[in-house]
Amino acid sequence: MEIDIYLDRIRRIQEMLYQRGIAAQFVTAGSNFAYLLGVRPLGLERLILLSIPSLGTPRLIVPKLSESEFAAFALYFQISPWADGEDPLLLVRDEIKRLPKDLPLAMDHGVPAKVVLDLVRQFPSFNLSIGEEAITSLRVTKDSAESQKMLQMGAIADIAMAAAIEACQPGQTEMDVAATIIATLLKHGAEADPPMPIVASGPNGAMPHHSTGRRKLAEGDVVVMDFGGRLNHYYSDMTRTICLGKPDPEFLRVYEVVHTAQAKALAAVRPGIPIGRLDEIARDYITQAGYGPYFTHRLGHGLGVDVHEEPYVYSGNETPLAVGMCFSIEPGVYLPGRFGVRIEDCVIVQEKEPLVLTKFTKNLIVK
Amino acid sequence: MEIDIYLDRIRRIQEMLYQRGIAAQFVTAGSNFAYLLGVRPLGLERLILLSIPSLGTPRLIVPKLSESEFAAFALYFQISPWADGEDPLLLVRDEIKRLPKDLPLAMDHGVPAKVVLDLVRQFPSFNLSIGEEAITSLRVTKDSAESQKMLQMGAIADIAMAAAIEACQPGQTEMDVAATIIATLLKHGAEADPPMPIVASGPNGAMPHHSTGRRKLAEGDVVVMDFGGRLNHYYSDMTRTICLGKPDPEFLRVYEVVHTAQAKALAAVRPGIPIGRLDEIARDYITQAGYGPYFTHRLGHGLGVDVHEEPYVYSGNETPLAVGMCFSIEPGVYLPGRFGVRIEDCVIVQEKEPLVLTKFTKNLIVK
Repeated sequence: MEIDIYLDRIRRIQEMLYQRGIAAQFVTAGSNFAYLLGVRPLGLERLILLSIPSLGTPRLIVPKLSESEFAAFALYFQISPWADGEDPLLLVRDEIKRLPKDLPLAMDHGVPAKVVLDLVRQFPSFNLSIGEEAITSLRVTKDSAESQKMLQMGAIADIAMAAAIEACQPGQTEMDVAATIIATLLKHGAEADPPMPIVASGPNGAMPHHSTGRRKLAEGDVVVMDFGGRLNHYYSDMTRTICLGKPDPEFLRVYEVVHTAQAKALAAVRPGIPIGRLDEIARDYITQAGYGPYFTHRLGHGLGVDVHEEPYVYSGNETPLAVGMCFSIEPGVYLPGRFGVRIEDCVIVQEKEPLVLTKFTKNLIVK
Repeated sequence: MEIDIYLDRIRRIQEMLYQRGIAAQFVTAGSNFAYLLGVRPLGLERLILLSIPSLGTPRLIVPKLSESEFAAFALYFQISPWADGEDPLLLVRDEIKRLPKDLPLAMDHGVPAKVVLDLVRQFPSFNLSIGEEAITSLRVTKDSAESQKMLQMGAIADIAMAAAIEACQPGQTEMDVAATIIATLLKHGAEADPPMPIVASGPNGAMPHHSTGRRKLAEGDVVVMDFGGRLNHYYSDMTRTICLGKPDPEFLRVYEVVHTAQAKALAAVRPGIPIGRLDEIARDYITQAGYGPYFTHRLGHGLGVDVHEEPYVYSGNETPLAVGMCFSIEPGVYLPGRFGVRIEDCVIVQEKEPLVLTKFTKNLIVK
């Protein structure tokens, strides 16, 4: 039964909380809900909060109109619905009152600022902290069922990338290409998330997080395409860069540098090495090629039930790689006003070769 | 110049802060950024924060890789970029130190809990609060340029609804219909947001926030379709309910009740009446028809640069309607295990008749 997976995760979190002497973990709507309950409710402004005490019954504070989505948990949780016009903060305060006062309470990163400030004021002697280490420690390594889900999603992303490249034609807008990506993801049962793929053409490519717009692709453009997708709660994330028509010689050079940097970092993935070492490997190579100042972000981020999660891949992060960790390797070089190049795949660490979730070619495509 | 619109909004906020004796307003990525800067950066986990002091130069704390998106403001703001691996909280603390200590500091609802808790601890004597009243007071009434943008987006939503109804066929999945909605929005230059339209078929329709899935539409199904879209930062939100094949007699009755309730609330929209009165009008009618317990949510929510924003339409909200206010009117009746009916349009209050942003027919469609 699927619900057993979730109840087991919650039980393991309760054990960790107990061992660490934490009174409870508060969990808010979003990826932690997907991971712990298999439900990803619309977040928006209505408060949904799961309190997992180290001992005792978890309690779900939920808007009345979402209550039925959690029917499977009614046997295991105390469910406290609240109606529009009622104040859910009263339920949160009530929940805190039943917790031991001498132990810290951890709230996940999604907890609304308003709730935190209310609790700090209502319970000044309580030791409140923002953290979700118990959950993260589970989420950070993917088991084989999770790896399978991520491979499935990766395979769909590969299909969407092929369709996107097909759609890149002079005269088409960035949004036209994005529409092709989204339609392809949906056709295969996946959702586009982040909702808008990044399609950054020509000089727009020099902005790593360019907002896809109505610029028309033109002959000679370099086009960076970066998008995420979600299937059964698990994400993909990938980037490819292509060229429409005759490439600029410096673009060819930069492409080769980024491509090689990515390959070098990928080849270095194995259990035990500090994750930050991967960033250094890619960055050193790009720096030696003379483009260090134009690689303006970290090498990557974790991936799972969130498109960005632990572990983060930046120089100095000494966290050792472990089997099951999943993250992106995405070096980029951005020449302001001219173009950008980024190549990204996500990998899952294995005993030997890592599992690469997206397999679309990284050889330069010029069309 | 477009930038003048944004600088003017910021100037007006500074005036309000000054009048109210507030040291500064902190603004985080999301709709407030769209409204105040015309830029909607990818939120994710990197902190972006605009500090608007009541007096002096605003300061933008921004991840290095997003800095170029704000180039237009470099003349007017102090820009403080931070690189991956650096701690943006140090910049936030530094910003607070330059503010007057004896005045309250307001942070918008998007401020991460982690930032709030850090500031509460670093500056225990500071009067921190979660609020954005100055911004909301501007956002809540739409000027004519904003109304035009919302009408444009509404017209695209109408086209997408027609396409969605066309796509509703026995054997198609909820996701297939959602894909048609998204593709139609994108084709017309809009984004789908929330990213996944609600397509709730048969018994799924009884869950107001059903997660669109792979259920196949069947002969006789009632189908609820609810989706948002965004164009030039402004949203639409609409819902229609149709029936595939011979309708159940109770469905016909419920449809008529919801349709009439919506029409009655719509007809009552005029400046000066308390907004909660609209909820009462629709609710009273549905209650008299015997379905009161099945109308489980408020009548509506504001709409603008967010899909849910002020003003909220619930019984007891005494806020008087004012010209330019924009919100949804969306009564619904949900019969658990059977079907749901919801009809939704958004309106902008005018001196006389309100402007209805979506014009797609509300006569029952049986196909």
